[in-house]
Amino acid sequence: MSGIITFVTDFGHADGFPAQMKGVILGINRSATLVDITHDIPSFSVLQGALALKSACRWFPMGTVHLAVVDPGVGTDRHALAVKAEDAFFVGPDNGLLTLAAPPSVEAEYRIIGNPEFMLPAPHPTFHGRDVFAPTAARLALGVPFESVGPLLEAPVLLQVPDVTQDPSGLEGMIIHIDRFGNLMSNIEGMMLTRPVRGVSAQGVEITGLSRCFGDKPTGSPMALINSAGLLEIAVHSGNASDMFGLVVGDTIRVEWT
Amino acid sequence: MSGIITFVTDFGHADGFPAQMKGVILGINRSATLVDITHDIPSFSVLQGALALKSACRWFPMGTVHLAVVDPGVGTDRHALAVKAEDAFFVGPDNGLLTLAAPPSVEAEYRIIGNPEFMLPAPHPTFHGRDVFAPTAARLALGVPFESVGPLLEAPVLLQVPDVTQDPSGLEGMIIHIDRFGNLMSNIEGMMLTRPVRGVSAQGVEITGLSRCFGDKPTGSPMALINSAGLLEIAVHSGNASDMFGLVVGDTIRVEWT
Amino acid sequence: MSGIITFVTDFGHADGFPAQMKGVILGINRSATLVDITHDIPSFSVLQGALALKSACRWFPMGTVHLAVVDPGVGTDRHALAVKAEDAFFVGPDNGLLTLAAPPSVEAEYRIIGNPEFMLPAPHPTFHGRDVFAPTAARLALGVPFESVGPLLEAPVLLQVPDVTQDPSGLEGMIIHIDRFGNLMSNIEGMMLTRPVRGVSAQGVEITGLSRCFGDKPTGSPMALINSAGLLEIAVHSGNASDMFGLVVGDTIRVEWT
Repeated sequence: MSGIITFVTDFGHADGFPAQMKGVILGINRSATLVDITHDIPSFSVLQGALALKSACRWFPMGTVHLAVVDPGVGTDRHALAVKAEDAFFVGPDNGLLTLAAPPSVEAEYRIIGNPEFMLPAPHPTFHGRDVFAPTAARLALGVPFESVGPLLEAPVLLQVPDVTQDPSGLEGMIIHIDRFGNLMSNIEGMMLTRPVRGVSAQGVEITGLSRCFGDKPTGSPMALINSAGLLEIAVHSGNASDMFGLVVGDTIRVEWT
Repeated sequence: MSGIITFVTDFGHADGFPAQMKGVILGINRSATLVDITHDIPSFSVLQGALALKSACRWFPMGTVHLAVVDPGVGTDRHALAVKAEDAFFVGPDNGLLTLAAPPSVEAEYRIIGNPEFMLPAPHPTFHGRDVFAPTAARLALGVPFESVGPLLEAPVLLQVPDVTQDPSGLEGMIIHIDRFGNLMSNIEGMMLTRPVRGVSAQGVEITGLSRCFGDKPTGSPMALINSAGLLEIAVHSGNASDMFGLVVGDTIRVEWT
Repeated sequence: MSGIITFVTDFGHADGFPAQMKGVILGINRSATLVDITHDIPSFSVLQGALALKSACRWFPMGTVHLAVVDPGVGTDRHALAVKAEDAFFVGPDNGLLTLAAPPSVEAEYRIIGNPEFMLPAPHPTFHGRDVFAPTAARLALGVPFESVGPLLEAPVLLQVPDVTQDPSGLEGMIIHIDRFGNLMSNIEGMMLTRPVRGVSAQGVEITGLSRCFGDKPTGSPMALINSAGLLEIAVHSGNASDMFGLVVGDTIRVEWT
């Protein structure tokens, strides 16, 4: 165990919900190191949460516990989950949120949080982040045996992720995230670009070739590049591609081979 | 002492004011654990700060020091306070900010910060958060004797909190906070609902019965429930009640008995 | 070394970029204490980043490492820098970002990050914050010899900071930052006010005299005062000077002697 617990939620920073989780964690595990990945996932957007978790978790030391809560079904009969993956643990609701970072496989053991020792007494039906997931994360980071969480879950709910399709002249994917700079991130992975790229287009925007970094083109120029998460994105040097082109999450993006 | 110091302020995250407080604290108490409750209290809103502090502080280990600064009177003759309550310490201005979390009583010892050892030299008249409250919190978290802070204060300034009124057919309260999801939180406590509830209404919005969690109704449906702070709120499943109904802080909310 | 690492970036909180840096740091230096100064610098605004860094860094214990990334030239041939100043270390791009906090001088040793041990393997050309600056900060906070970073840099890129000019009747400067409260911060330092001040004016706004704190005038009244960073600013008691007057960064501000 690294003793580190990270957070991905749609709770925002204004209301103190993340702090309530942290108070609970520190009451159980006083020496945990707490790191926010983000609390600014758009409300109820399981896909955006799953993407943020996947991008960030791999940069943490082995044995880190990642707590993720984007949970419109809180209080219903959806399961609460803990996952032991190859080199990290994940805690969150059974709605697909964890499945990009820890795809169900022989290396990822999914368990239902069923042991009351992993919850506060009488968990509130609208805040399992604080009353179920936080105590579970705190105990996992202490190194308690993973089996004690609860029973195995064979078939967790999977996230519907848009596919990348291939045809003789190129690839077609989708814009899946817009970052703070207005960069338009797609679901096309850099390693899918197995042939030389003539250009990238999206909703009438046409970009020739691939760039390596923002400074490869003059200020204000659009470009396509493989971003630091390994995904194709459209960006503008010292500008905002989202504002410039009006593209949004869900728009189609296309790679044309030379 | 837990060694934990939390923060509630209206400083925002953009300008680095919270970090200046943290630097001062770590210079005095290098091993303190620092947890932000929120820095996004609306500017000068003592009530919103007091509510956030009250909701979050109870989830932290005993002996935590809670530093709160929403302080339009900084630099005037308003007192700077430290409070020793039953199981926590509070530091902040004498404007009511601390009085929901630590109501003045025999269990809450209010002291004026008067000892210069609890301040930086020459505190700046616009930033007592950094120059008075931060060093005080740092020293309290080290376990210095509480009496050394300064003299007792008999009558701290109290916060005017709207009342809940009762009549034969129900209760009448007020919307006091809107959270990140647009949930409309009232000042009506769950434990005030001593009779079966027929419905909840606010400015023409009518909701039948009480729900247990968001998922009790279909997506997009409004509902009333007791939230995770123990207060009655109006919410919308996977939606934004504030946007849907145009209700704001200060609007009247009414509970009707069956 | 204090073991503390701080952060100033324009990465925002939504996308998890700061967390990726923190994960890398904790993988190298598990016991580092991480403090956000701000991640909300306006995109690409090197001046705003330099100002936030300068205001905050002096409040941290000696031997703190300050990591700053506002870096539109990432991936180009601009240098990556580490600086050993009188009582702190700084890490960031060679674009002027570090030069207000650590002005090049005999006390500030500027080095180019050239040693591959201070980088992740194959740094991504769009995210040196994670792949170059974070590992460098982590190692410096561990106390590795500063010379091992890389070669000395004689002439770092300097930031163009607007000048304050003086004439027989007063001083003329510029509004350089607007804080969360709408306070209008100028580049005129309190110590430049060597004569009694008759008034302060900016774009037709006229303020008589200097105030000491916000409460010196009635609620809603504008005033000029020396703020907690030691700079002249225009503020409104419990109000927002930026909204009230429509002033923006870059506007001229003038002090008139009596």
